[in-house]
Amino acid sequence: MDLIKQSFSVNFSYNVYFSEDIFHKNNLILKNFFEEYNSRGTKQKILFVIDDGVVNGHPQLIEKINSYFSTYSETIELVDPIILLPGGEEVKNRSNALDEVLDAINTYGIDRHSYVAGVGGGALLDMVGYASAISHRGIRHLRFPTTVLSQNDSGVGVKNGINYFNKKNFLGTFAPPIGVFNDPVFLRSLEERDWRSGIAEAVKVALIKDLAFFEWLENNADRLRQQDEEAMKYLIFRCAQMHCDHIAGGDPFETGSARPLDFGHWAAHKLEHITHYEVRHGEAVAIGIALDSTYSHYTGMISRDDLQRIISVFNRVGLNVFHEKLEEGRTLQRGLDEFREHLGGQLTITLLEHLGKGMEVHEMDYDRIEKSIQFLKRYSTQKV
Amino acid sequence: MDLIKQSFSVNFSYNVYFSEDIFHKNNLILKNFFEEYNSRGTKQKILFVIDDGVVNGHPQLIEKINSYFSTYSETIELVDPIILLPGGEEVKNRSNALDEVLDAINTYGIDRHSYVAGVGGGALLDMVGYASAISHRGIRHLRFPTTVLSQNDSGVGVKNGINYFNKKNFLGTFAPPIGVFNDPVFLRSLEERDWRSGIAEAVKVALIKDLAFFEWLENNADRLRQQDEEAMKYLIFRCAQMHCDHIAGGDPFETGSARPLDFGHWAAHKLEHITHYEVRHGEAVAIGIALDSTYSHYTGMISRDDLQRIISVFNRVGLNVFHEKLEEGRTLQRGLDEFREHLGGQLTITLLEHLGKGMEVHEMDYDRIEKSIQFLKRYSTQKV
Repeated sequence: MDLIKQSFSVNFSYNVYFSEDIFHKNNLILKNFFEEYNSRGTKQKILFVIDDGVVNGHPQLIEKINSYFSTYSETIELVDPIILLPGGEEVKNRSNALDEVLDAINTYGIDRHSYVAGVGGGALLDMVGYASAISHRGIRHLRFPTTVLSQNDSGVGVKNGINYFNKKNFLGTFAPPIGVFNDPVFLRSLEERDWRSGIAEAVKVALIKDLAFFEWLENNADRLRQQDEEAMKYLIFRCAQMHCDHIAGGDPFETGSARPLDFGHWAAHKLEHITHYEVRHGEAVAIGIALDSTYSHYTGMISRDDLQRIISVFNRVGLNVFHEKLEEGRTLQRGLDEFREHLGGQLTITLLEHLGKGMEVHEMDYDRIEKSIQFLKRYSTQKV
Repeated sequence: MDLIKQSFSVNFSYNVYFSEDIFHKNNLILKNFFEEYNSRGTKQKILFVIDDGVVNGHPQLIEKINSYFSTYSETIELVDPIILLPGGEEVKNRSNALDEVLDAINTYGIDRHSYVAGVGGGALLDMVGYASAISHRGIRHLRFPTTVLSQNDSGVGVKNGINYFNKKNFLGTFAPPIGVFNDPVFLRSLEERDWRSGIAEAVKVALIKDLAFFEWLENNADRLRQQDEEAMKYLIFRCAQMHCDHIAGGDPFETGSARPLDFGHWAAHKLEHITHYEVRHGEAVAIGIALDSTYSHYTGMISRDDLQRIISVFNRVGLNVFHEKLEEGRTLQRGLDEFREHLGGQLTITLLEHLGKGMEVHEMDYDRIEKSIQFLKRYSTQKV
């Protein structure tokens, strides 16, 4: 038999910048970025797609972006108009949102050396990232995450996606951005609920990877609850850093079955879905983590004291550890089945070996899940 | 300014197998392949999507595939039914073809550790590869190319795509297959026209990379015209090998502007488009190569004798070097503009420095293009 063995590696590099007031004329980060990346001999364009909720919270934003790019128009050409779309999960459900971005990419001649920028929360960034990834086999994509959750987690990662066939992220790709810009100005207009819910992913990475960061979260839970910006900036930087390290050090495009960063997520995805996204992602992740931590305790992996510390951190930052829909037993079982199908191959769930260290298992016991739910329910009721 | 520098490499590996009668029960290549790739603890599925023209040429094919997978059903589960779709460019234009594949991936629960196999020419493989790449962020994709062109060129590469907004490959990704299976049995049912047109890409790689292979083509042009299977098997193997080497050795996901393998393709794409694909891809590529070779001659790069050798090879294998639509002058200019937009950045065109070596230029002169067209027209008329 004749055979050609093909093998090659592709390097992906991008920076995550942390800078205040990124679109202020005196902030040269973006200008310098485009000067570095611009291709010889041609002038690149940039198309902006912005979450309209962000514009409501920052009424000067569009004027600021226009002014920034008009100042540096020799470096990069801003496409007029800027596209505004609703944020939240709905933007991933509606195919006309994707169509609007694709249509603009075509109409304004955005090529593989030009840029599509998304400004918004994780859902909008997922959809814009997907549109960029499939157009001309991949246009340069910039992310400006505006929520805690997108700045510390999804926005700095390599995934995109939209919902299809009523399934979360059924369509999507792995396509690293070319740059991520985390600006604390956007955090100032967040509802308290969104501020809080972003903390869940930080608790997650701390629990599976870094006891010291978990202890920092314990020591700073009150500052975080009080919306202390300095505390939140540290949380976001450290969480984003651990997220990036995990991607680079492991299996960036997830060809295996393990997903340590999905700790607590199998139940969270299902809970979001069955509450029609009334429970937000971070809120659902907090509950999912509490559930799998309790399960870890009942499996003999972490002590009751450690479980108490986890629940206590969530409580102190204002995140619930229980939702009544958790009691719809078979629904959660289906969540486990769907998680298996989405990952493919063998079911792989992360539990806690001890605080700061995750551990993979390949099955979960439904009775023990039920027992964990009842524990969290009692705990939650006692609190009230 | 705080900054996280993210950088990682992703390795992509796959084999291109050359084997006769791949679905014969005694041929263990596929069985062994699945045993090697199957993930621990679960049973993978495979969904087949087949070009119905191939089934017409090989009426036993579906029965053979069913029989093969029923023999090895412990190893891999064949999804029933097999999907049949029309081949040719039309399958990339009709969104319902893509939808049918996505729908089957969803309905039959094909996950990231299962397989989607495409059996057909380059267009069908492009569409099926795209459906696989965007489902669940990438399902394992197998290709069974059935034409000369797909076995020696597109089928062994890393691109997929569909047409959108009436633009060729507007939507697509770079997503390497997990395995390619080149079976000469499929070549036996090809129309003479498709047999011939596949030779154009071999002439292309030979001209830009390997004089010895060009000389082999000169020496074997008559055997190729007479549909000698052994000659064609060598042509396909050598051309596929050079195509793979080029991808692995260069810029696999084409982040730069250079596209040496697109030698002759800017005019070819436009010619296919304006003739509504009556001119097939390989036929158009032969004309495009002849055009850019003539242009190279008029630029002082290759001699009249060398140009004559190129045209002579095309003639002897039965490929024309001229089409009357080339004379629609401004149409070709638009082709150059569209090529620039699709590549993005600076226009980069490959010309011939000498036989066996391409050379990049960044502009083309319209008068000289016109002069080249007139040369090919006179040449073509004299031949008749």
